[in-house]
Amino acid sequence: MEFPANSLQRRIFIANMLKTAGAAALLSAVGPLEACASPDDKKDYTVQDIMDLILKEIPGAPFKQTVDTLKSGDAAQKVTGIVTTMFTTVDIIRQAVKEKANFIIAHEPTFYNHTDDPDWVAKNEIVKMKQDLLKENNITVWRFHDYWHAYRPDGIMDGVLKKAGWQQYGKSGEFMLTIPEMSLEKIAIHFKSSLKLQKVRVIGDLSQSCKRIALLPGAWGGQRQVTAAENEKPDVLIVGEVHEWETAEYIRDARAFGKNISLIILGHSVSEEPGMEWLAEWLQPKVSGIKVKHIASGDPFKWL
Amino acid sequence: MEFPANSLQRRIFIANMLKTAGAAALLSAVGPLEACASPDDKKDYTVQDIMDLILKEIPGAPFKQTVDTLKSGDAAQKVTGIVTTMFTTVDIIRQAVKEKANFIIAHEPTFYNHTDDPDWVAKNEIVKMKQDLLKENNITVWRFHDYWHAYRPDGIMDGVLKKAGWQQYGKSGEFMLTIPEMSLEKIAIHFKSSLKLQKVRVIGDLSQSCKRIALLPGAWGGQRQVTAAENEKPDVLIVGEVHEWETAEYIRDARAFGKNISLIILGHSVSEEPGMEWLAEWLQPKVSGIKVKHIASGDPFKWL
Repeated sequence: MEFPANSLQRRIFIANMLKTAGAAALLSAVGPLEACASPDDKKDYTVQDIMDLILKEIPGAPFKQTVDTLKSGDAAQKVTGIVTTMFTTVDIIRQAVKEKANFIIAHEPTFYNHTDDPDWVAKNEIVKMKQDLLKENNITVWRFHDYWHAYRPDGIMDGVLKKAGWQQYGKSGEFMLTIPEMSLEKIAIHFKSSLKLQKVRVIGDLSQSCKRIALLPGAWGGQRQVTAAENEKPDVLIVGEVHEWETAEYIRDARAFGKNISLIILGHSVSEEPGMEWLAEWLQPKVSGIKVKHIASGDPFKWL
Repeated sequence: MEFPANSLQRRIFIANMLKTAGAAALLSAVGPLEACASPDDKKDYTVQDIMDLILKEIPGAPFKQTVDTLKSGDAAQKVTGIVTTMFTTVDIIRQAVKEKANFIIAHEPTFYNHTDDPDWVAKNEIVKMKQDLLKENNITVWRFHDYWHAYRPDGIMDGVLKKAGWQQYGKSGEFMLTIPEMSLEKIAIHFKSSLKLQKVRVIGDLSQSCKRIALLPGAWGGQRQVTAAENEKPDVLIVGEVHEWETAEYIRDARAFGKNISLIILGHSVSEEPGMEWLAEWLQPKVSGIKVKHIASGDPFKWL
């Protein structure tokens, strides 16, 4: 059953139905009235409402096992505004406060370890200060990692491909791309320029011609990166970060054996940020009464 | 009991003793004849001999649990020459062959994972090719990681401090140094120049004055790096490599809270290489009949 898209039209439509039918018949026809209300009709969203609204779009959600839990705050809290970002840094929290946004949706951990265990390092003063800062400002943080990667097409991948202008080369659910042949150097410079990176690290012959790309933004870990390389034999592996003693050494040796494989390291935060920018664009129309703003947590490094 | 240092003198000394005493009395006085021979008398060393000779200098060695095992070859193999390095790369193997050295002592894994499990990634073609290359050339590889760190002073740390000209600031067994006050930028440039690095990555205010340094070459992992930072509150943490989403984000937040802590990332291989250079110097006088050569596996990266 379809309803008019416009809110005013929708109200007239429902009013007309009420004139021509009894309330019970209407409810039977369209379900509870609440189901008729589109998100932009609803004045108050709780954190839980926003999460539900997002999760119904994710295949297989909710997951039994996931790191995508609340890291601070409360699912019942009324949302005043939403910020999407890669890392809920102290600076991002302060910017969210300025924006009067009390709900941060971040791709990566808040407390410096995968499960956000506050006792990962005992009596961590910075963890305590950050917990206090979040509490004082009533900020709820939700990690949105596993779910956004499980969306089809993968929300992070899709955001990165959009930003790189390479959407036409991607296939939903696949990390392999086939691009028109270009040199390793040109690919590195293309990412540097489209993702606005300060520097990239490269292993390979810059003049090598590349066509088959394994694009793995973020930190997949050495085992998954090397498995991708072994299974797919790409011309170049593009990653967010590596364990230097795993993936980088594998690539160095593969090249010494004459294999046509290279590595480009973009940096973790900057490699996935376009996916969280895309989340803000994707989410905004679903909650038009609330401002959804992407703020990049950005590259933490200076290069000397 | 001391013997003449010179080999010929020693032979005369033993011959004279044999003239004046029965063999049994001699053995009782000096122990088995083999114990009398100094390393430079001995024409043939096996890999096991070299390992024994090294391990008797390491407190608590041999360890029950260690990654410092043979990764190829045979403990009974006669050693023709020794190469020390950070990573047994394919290039290092080829250089060792040219040097007619069949024993490589390397600080880090050969097969791209901590325990050198060849099946870490199933049917890894590069692992197979490397195993074959080592076998064809009869190269024995020993990882020398845990033991060199357990030597006092820590062999890697000592090598790095020597290379940086900072030995006077180190204390055996400690990673904290107190240096004359200097700016973060000056420290970064000092390491870049003394360790001959292409680039370093930094988080911090370059003009910040630093005195207390936590020097952690290599890949300690986020938990140990952050623990060191929390416990010692250094002005700067200098590391080989980081998990960007752990240590780097911790430092970024600590700084946002006004803490006077910075991060310098040197690169893994180059941050510990001076320790393997020092191993060659340390080992050579103990096996003067055999050439011990350090060959740097070097920085795998180009920076664009």
